Order: sequence, then C-alpha cells, then structure tokens
Amino acid sequence: MQTPTLYQSASSPNSRRVRIFLAEKGIDIPLVAVDLGKGEQHTEAYRAINSRRVVPTLVLEDGTSIGEVPAIWRYLEETHPAVPLLGTTPKEQALIAMWERRVEQEGFASVMEAVRNQVPGLKERAIAGAHDYAQIPAMVDRGKLRLLNFYADLDARLQESAFVAGHAFSVADITALVTIDFAAKALGLPFSDTQLAIKRWYAEVSLRPGTGA
Amino acid sequence: MQTPTLYQSASSPNSRRVRIFLAEKGIDIPLVAVDLGKGEQHTEAYRAINSRRVVPTLVLEDGTSIGEVPAIWRYLEETHPAVPLLGTTPKEQALIAMWERRVEQEGFASVMEAVRNQVPGLKERAIAGAHDYAQIPAMVDRGKLRLLNFYADLDARLQESAFVAGHAFSVADITALVTIDFAAKALGLPFSDTQLAIKRWYAEVSLRPGTGA
Repeated sequence: MQTPTLYQSASSPNSRRVRIFLAEKGIDIPLVAVDLGKGEQHTEAYRAINSRRVVPTLVLEDGTSIGEVPAIWRYLEETHPAVPLLGTTPKEQALIAMWERRVEQEGFASVMEAVRNQVPGLKERAIAGAHDYAQIPAMVDRGKLRLLNFYADLDARLQESAFVAGHAFSVADITALVTIDFAAKALGLPFSDTQLAIKRWYAEVSLRPGTGA
Repeated sequence: MQTPTLYQSASSPNSRRVRIFLAEKGIDIPLVAVDLGKGEQHTEAYRAINSRRVVPTLVLEDGTSIGEVPAIWRYLEETHPAVPLLGTTPKEQALIAMWERRVEQEGFASVMEAVRNQVPGLKERAIAGAHDYAQIPAMVDRGKLRLLNFYADLDARLQESAFVAGHAFSVADITALVTIDFAAKALGLPFSDTQLAIKRWYAEVSLRPGTGA
C-alpha cells in the first residue's frame, strides 16, 4: 500500500473534513502544513500541486495530486475500505452521497459564502480558486439566512434519523459537524438551544475520538 | 436487479446529466416527466419524492428517493458497473471525482448562477431548494465572467488531455458538455471559436450516441 501525503491547514474547514475522515478510519499519513495566513497557497510551489490554490490536496506517491474533498475521500475509502464512511451497499452509498451534498451545498457553502464576502482580507477573493472575484456584500446576509434555514432543516432531519444519512456515522455527519463548528467560530452563529435534535446529535458526534481532528 | 424510476424534465440540465449517463451505459429505466413550466416540482406529490423540489430524482423499487446527480450516478454505477463512468482504480475514481467537481463548481454552477439571478420567473427562486431566496443582480455578471474563465481553463486542460479527466470519457465530460450546451442556449454564451481544444473535444463527445440524450 502506497502512503500519500496530505497538504492541509489546521484552520481550514475543508482540511478538517479530511482529517476527521482519516482519524475515524484510523489512517495515519504524513500531513504537510500550508500556511494560509502567510499566503503559502498562492506560491508557485503550491500552485504546482493544486492550481486552484486551495487546501487540502492529497499527493500520491507517484506525484498525482488529488484536490477536492469528496475526491480525496473516495481515494481513501477505496484504498482503506475498513470503517466505511461512504456506505457499502449501492443504496447506502447513494443516500450518504445525497445527504452529504445537501449539507455541503446548503450548510457548508452558506457559511463560506457569508465569510468570504465579508472578511476584509478576501476583498478580491470572494470565491476560492484560480481566479479572483470581488466580494458581493448582499451575499453576506443571504449566506447567514441560508445557514439558519439549514439549521432548521438539519434539526428536522435529526428528529427522524440517528445520524444525518441514516443509522450510521458517515461523511454527511463530518460535513455537518465541520459546518456547525466553523459557523460558530467564523460567523458567531451557532445552532439554537431549542434545536434539540441537533443538540443531541452534536453532543454525540463531537465526543467521538476522531472528530477532534 | 431492481428497476428504479427517474423523475426528470427534458429541459433540465441536471436531468440531462443523468440521461446521458444512462444512455452511455445502455441502462433502460422508466422516465417520468415532471413539468417544470407548470410548476409540478412544487406540488405536494413531488415534494413527497424530493423535498428540495428539484429534478432529477431516482426512486428505487422500495420507494427510497435518491436526489442529487452525483448520488444518482453512484447508485447506477454500483448497480451497473459495466461501461464505468466514475472510474475503476482508486486513482482514476479520485481524478474523475476531482475534475467533475471542478467542472460543476466553476462551469455548471456559474451558468446556473447567472440564469437563476436573471430570469424574471425566478425572482424569489434564485437558489433551487426548499427555501426561497431573492435574486442578487450582481451575480448575473459575475456568473458570466466565471463561465468565461471556465472556458479558458477547460481549453487549457483539453490541450493536454483527450478527455476532461484523462484518457477515457467520464462524468467529467458529461457535466462539461451539459454546461456548454446550456450556456449557449440559456445565456447565449458559447465557447470561443479560437478555443481549439474545446472545439476538438466538443465535436468528438457531441457525436457519441449517448450524448444526444
């Protein structure tokens, strides 16, 4: 089995999605820190690894770069099938892919949208990637509103399901947890104390050994 | 093998991403048309199938609904592995997932962003899903700019690769083709005649029997 290397940053929520995945599966690979504060992601050296200038990137032993969290997860799940986090049967795999994507698009992306259109240091970097885009101030409030709607939908979902995608912990829970923690930290917008189903689920998943990663 | 049913619409680009996938694999399943013009996606009956009120949805024989294109693809690939479109080795799977996602986020999403924030009939529906969001006019021009950057990046990629994700046709090509055709139709923004690598690739993929779906 080859051992790839993960380029990542401690403060990056997308990096945390992969770190938790590794920890839950018990996979131990070398991590290389990319200093986002110093703009290391914009250097020629890092662009050669990931032209979109984002973390995380998984670099395989043959030098192939895998960017994008779901792509990295797929590689790791295929090479380390034990403790499945993407599901096993076709139906489980599809349901986990569906729920993880909804959480990402409605929760995670909403927080990112609010943060990136608001932070002074990202005035011309409202979208991560190879190109610069100016902030659109109206997206800050919309992002926050979308996050509140996401919390309401997540609470409803967790009233009927132990975990986000069903009876087992999966990547859908990882993205939901990272979203919630980052929303509280970066936007000061935690879920509400009255959202009891999220509260029950959050207490459970945040106590898992792997989710501290 | 169970036969699921696909709820979809002829005019929906997301539906087309699944129709092409089915055609390329030679899978024949029942299609049910959802009339978006008449607002059939907002009816109680359809919301019971997909709470996000979007097409496509794959309904399994046991009644389970699978929404979201990548989740539907995953189910179909696992149940019909012949003619792999999501890759076979871990590395191929990861590279296809990465490239497809980049095309979706930078190309497909840009077109959708421009269209949904511009069309008069979607004034309060700028984002597909369970909640209504007002249009943000500044996102129209930004979406078009993002599309042009996507074309430039795609042309560069296709100068070095036969298909978007490598040497074989995959879902990354499906999303790129649907993006290009929808951008030309809905925004009047085709790729440029000088983008010869896209031109070469487009001629090849648009002649495949499956991509007419």
